[in-house]
Amino acid sequence: MLDIQTKLNPVPFTRVRIDDPFWMERSRTNREHTIPAIYDQCERSGRLEALKLQWREGEPKPHVFWDSDVTKWIEAASYSLALHPDAELEKRVDETIDLLASGQQPDGYLNIYFTAVEPGKRWMDLKDAHELYCAGHLFEAGVAHFEATGSRKLLDVVCKYADYIAQVFGSAEGQIQGYCGHPEIELALVRLYRCTNNRSYLDLSKYFVDERGRQPNYFDSEKEARGGTPAYFEHYFSAPGRQTTHDYSQSHKPVREQEQVVGHSVRAMYLYSAMADLAEEYNDPTLMDACKNLWNHLTETQMYITGGIGSSEGNEGFTDEYDLPNDTAYCETCASIGLVFWNHRMLHATGEAKYADVLERALYNGAISGVSLSGKSFFYVNPLESHGQHHRQEWFEVSCCPANLSRLLTTLGQYIYSEGEREAAVNLYVQSTGELAVNGEQVKLRQQTNYPWEGHVAVTLELGKSSEFALKLRRPGWCSRVEVSVNGEKQPASVEKGYIVLDRVWNNGDRVELEMEMVAERIYVNPAVAADRGRVAIQRGPVVYCLEEADNGPGLDKLSLSPEAPLNVKFDASLLEGVAVIRTMAQRPIEQDWAGKLYANKRGRSENIEVSAIPYYAWDNRQPGAMLVWIRESS
Amino acid sequence: MLDIQTKLNPVPFTRVRIDDPFWMERSRTNREHTIPAIYDQCERSGRLEALKLQWREGEPKPHVFWDSDVTKWIEAASYSLALHPDAELEKRVDETIDLLASGQQPDGYLNIYFTAVEPGKRWMDLKDAHELYCAGHLFEAGVAHFEATGSRKLLDVVCKYADYIAQVFGSAEGQIQGYCGHPEIELALVRLYRCTNNRSYLDLSKYFVDERGRQPNYFDSEKEARGGTPAYFEHYFSAPGRQTTHDYSQSHKPVREQEQVVGHSVRAMYLYSAMADLAEEYNDPTLMDACKNLWNHLTETQMYITGGIGSSEGNEGFTDEYDLPNDTAYCETCASIGLVFWNHRMLHATGEAKYADVLERALYNGAISGVSLSGKSFFYVNPLESHGQHHRQEWFEVSCCPANLSRLLTTLGQYIYSEGEREAAVNLYVQSTGELAVNGEQVKLRQQTNYPWEGHVAVTLELGKSSEFALKLRRPGWCSRVEVSVNGEKQPASVEKGYIVLDRVWNNGDRVELEMEMVAERIYVNPAVAADRGRVAIQRGPVVYCLEEADNGPGLDKLSLSPEAPLNVKFDASLLEGVAVIRTMAQRPIEQDWAGKLYANKRGRSENIEVSAIPYYAWDNRQPGAMLVWIRESS
Repeated sequence: MLDIQTKLNPVPFTRVRIDDPFWMERSRTNREHTIPAIYDQCERSGRLEALKLQWREGEPKPHVFWDSDVTKWIEAASYSLALHPDAELEKRVDETIDLLASGQQPDGYLNIYFTAVEPGKRWMDLKDAHELYCAGHLFEAGVAHFEATGSRKLLDVVCKYADYIAQVFGSAEGQIQGYCGHPEIELALVRLYRCTNNRSYLDLSKYFVDERGRQPNYFDSEKEARGGTPAYFEHYFSAPGRQTTHDYSQSHKPVREQEQVVGHSVRAMYLYSAMADLAEEYNDPTLMDACKNLWNHLTETQMYITGGIGSSEGNEGFTDEYDLPNDTAYCETCASIGLVFWNHRMLHATGEAKYADVLERALYNGAISGVSLSGKSFFYVNPLESHGQHHRQEWFEVSCCPANLSRLLTTLGQYIYSEGEREAAVNLYVQSTGELAVNGEQVKLRQQTNYPWEGHVAVTLELGKSSEFALKLRRPGWCSRVEVSVNGEKQPASVEKGYIVLDRVWNNGDRVELEMEMVAERIYVNPAVAADRGRVAIQRGPVVYCLEEADNGPGLDKLSLSPEAPLNVKFDASLLEGVAVIRTMAQRPIEQDWAGKLYANKRGRSENIEVSAIPYYAWDNRQPGAMLVWIRESS
Repeated sequence: MLDIQTKLNPVPFTRVRIDDPFWMERSRTNREHTIPAIYDQCERSGRLEALKLQWREGEPKPHVFWDSDVTKWIEAASYSLALHPDAELEKRVDETIDLLASGQQPDGYLNIYFTAVEPGKRWMDLKDAHELYCAGHLFEAGVAHFEATGSRKLLDVVCKYADYIAQVFGSAEGQIQGYCGHPEIELALVRLYRCTNNRSYLDLSKYFVDERGRQPNYFDSEKEARGGTPAYFEHYFSAPGRQTTHDYSQSHKPVREQEQVVGHSVRAMYLYSAMADLAEEYNDPTLMDACKNLWNHLTETQMYITGGIGSSEGNEGFTDEYDLPNDTAYCETCASIGLVFWNHRMLHATGEAKYADVLERALYNGAISGVSLSGKSFFYVNPLESHGQHHRQEWFEVSCCPANLSRLLTTLGQYIYSEGEREAAVNLYVQSTGELAVNGEQVKLRQQTNYPWEGHVAVTLELGKSSEFALKLRRPGWCSRVEVSVNGEKQPASVEKGYIVLDRVWNNGDRVELEMEMVAERIYVNPAVAADRGRVAIQRGPVVYCLEEADNGPGLDKLSLSPEAPLNVKFDASLLEGVAVIRTMAQRPIEQDWAGKLYANKRGRSENIEVSAIPYYAWDNRQPGAMLVWIRESS
């Protein structure tokens, strides 16, 4: 019997070839439409021009985080190049890197805003000016470009900047004992360390995370040093009447003492991702315990069924436990993407498939809802109910989400498989081929599936020689019944940490089949959630459904679902690039009965109608109109 | 057969003696506690001191509508003196009138703010400065004091001021062609005309009403004249994204063209009251038609079940049709009082009992909910759902509601009976004796009832001699089944315009009995009202019920009523000064089933519990806690 507790590592996307019906089209759209569209928008909005550092008073002013939009695009484009060489795109990437690099100062510093716009104010507003945040995204771009192309061109620029930052920040005399208001550099430094093996980057990341939330709070000291005038976004700082300023940036207390998710949700996800990274790198259970507490709090009290997080626009983030309003839900696309990042790390730190369940929930719902099927327009917020006022836009004043989605899609492969010393794991069911290293030998897993529309998965093993190891297949949390067979022979589906474990000697050509019962279900919510009381959602497999006005006419919230009616599933290849549609019966009030009447001592009559639900991620790809996830249930 | 279309007039409260179990106690509390408490607050807050016009820079600044708080108190106190002589109160009223009168300027002008605080700015900000509004309340006080005491002391002051205003405003050369941003003077001038028979007051009222909303809008011209700087309350001016500034004060178009209720709800009620008055005085069907259109729009789309009106704090008023949120409902106490005023006028202008239905709904629910049973604390807003954050206060910065309630209660008698040439009508069922004049003869109606707790009413007629006339008994809109008898003999209950009409020769001592079936009912709402979908309210007779945390524990909104369970009524003399309590069954989710779980594919289990509902008006008279009118219904 093998020890299945051994460390699992993600298989990088460069060793995974996706040929999945669901994801192939999205991936192509991302490559052909989204990446060029973001570049065009960066150009049109002046973000590229700004890299020349020629800004003059009177011109449109670069925003403090413009750098990050460009560097996230470099990251997405570089990863795209890794799998899909494209000379024109490569040229654009190179030119953009050259432009970026030309702005690096002799000491290594590299930031548009504090070089061209407010050159005297470097590091004076860590709380709000996104300076280290921009550095983080730059570092990630450098790592991505190196991984994708082998070129050190941007990586060298990045290392020079990182070395400079490591001099500026720290606990020694003369160093700034601060950290960024928007976490990001922490996880970027871990990536940079893993890419370069330069341990000072890892230590700097740890320094930032350890320092965060210590008393007296750095941001208070910083504000005092500035003469007490806080700059930028002061109005965003708290949910009405509840959170303090420092909750907003998760710096209200030392991270190891944090047990409840608070504040800006993207900041939270990036911070927790770094905490999970450092827990692993330093083998630090105190950081991992904090992550687990925060994860429980999030998933038990503050996560929408779509994997959307952040209930309030006021702080772009978390509010009270069970406060999950639908039409005003913020659910920033970047927050769901961050939830994918964090859970990917938690999955590998713990080997627990429940983290992949949350990753999958965010991925198939609240993350990809952020981009249109055309790949050219985007949601910044992803509410669970719309009265028709929401429509994807081509760009935003603050435009973090488009490039974030794009880099998620170019690296999708990395979420599918994990490898360990004596293990191979399938985390996501995506038709693809993964090249894993197990027992020092190459194990090629060829996955065939029509997920998320069907629950059948076949995995064929291609091995140079027979080998004994544990093949682990994630048993999704949404699935009530599963059957597994090897070479046609049914196997006992022993489940550990959420994985079906098949521990045996494997031969080349062995074929494992997984049959997950995938039925459309009514989902109910904890009665503490006021917004959804008396309502149900529909989910099938990992996909959350919604009613859209385009299919069901206006007045969605007047409908109530028949509690006992069957939920009939039918795949419609012609609709929304192919979706499984769910049809069921609902009651619609007969409005004539109420003509001129506001109140009555009789319940009004209703008529039975058939309603059609579509996957949530695909809403608002037709004419603008109302949408509803949590639907009232008839009494 | 008599013509029952003849004009009906309200029987003034001075000819009505109330000895009703329900209202006697409220009336006594008003007299013994509320009237003294308001005086004390006026004194403590500086409102009385301000009448001396000695304000100096640096002292707490009188507010533009402080005058009206004092004059409304004079009105309430005067009416109280009419029925309940009280030497001490009389002295206070006299002293206050002396103080007030001492501030009258030689030309007749009388206003604290624009005499003591901004003396140079008379009539420069009609839109927001409440100058004519304050005059209106002063006029009403003068009329009330004269009616109650026979003294012309305040009335003469008032007439001098009114004469001055009639010179200042009008369409002639040199006159101001404007009107007040807050209607009030219009109805006050009608009262002043009816009291003095000076027709110029009536004409001035008509002028103000006719001028309102004419283009170009006076408030725009006025603003321009001031150099474009609007003052006061600019932030209140519109419901988000919907209404223009002029909607707020119902001056967006000429009043006869107004078909939808908009803007500040108290302003609307006072304006519509004046319109109904003028329609009657000038026999102007165009004004009456506008009133009817507005009434239909209000009652069919914007009126809460409690008779509360005004959904939004943003404009203290109306928003969209069917927009009736519960926890953020504004429902200012003064607005429900204004609804009583307007419907009283509509009732007499049309003879239609449906107006008395609305009057009664507001009176027994959203109006008297504004004062505690102790008589000493007040609600400014009357939401239909509270999470425990609402609690009556002793006073407000803007304190229009307490004295408004107080004057409503002192004059309650005037709403009960109406008299006409050959008719006597009972509009409200309140145990009392009314002295009516019918056929030129005195008709004394002695009404015995335990309304609103029981549906039985006996009316005994005391006549000097036999007389033929129609006795009209309102058949309430809430009542499905009614029986009527005369001297023990059942009568056919022929209903016209909502009244049971008993048209016959009446003899002294005749006794009419009315048996209205009064059952507790579930009330349903038009499905266009999003806030109440899937919910029911409980009503019995005119009384709307609510659940309170004090009786049912926390988490009211987690409960759902069993759709078929009986609604059991029991009078509890010891509770809340005596109320009929309604008990029924509800389902409460079993919370343990949801420990650590946010979503599930099974409906959670529930337990059956008994819940107790109390009358809405009586809520928040025990410990602060949650309250709910619209309760979910179990599916």
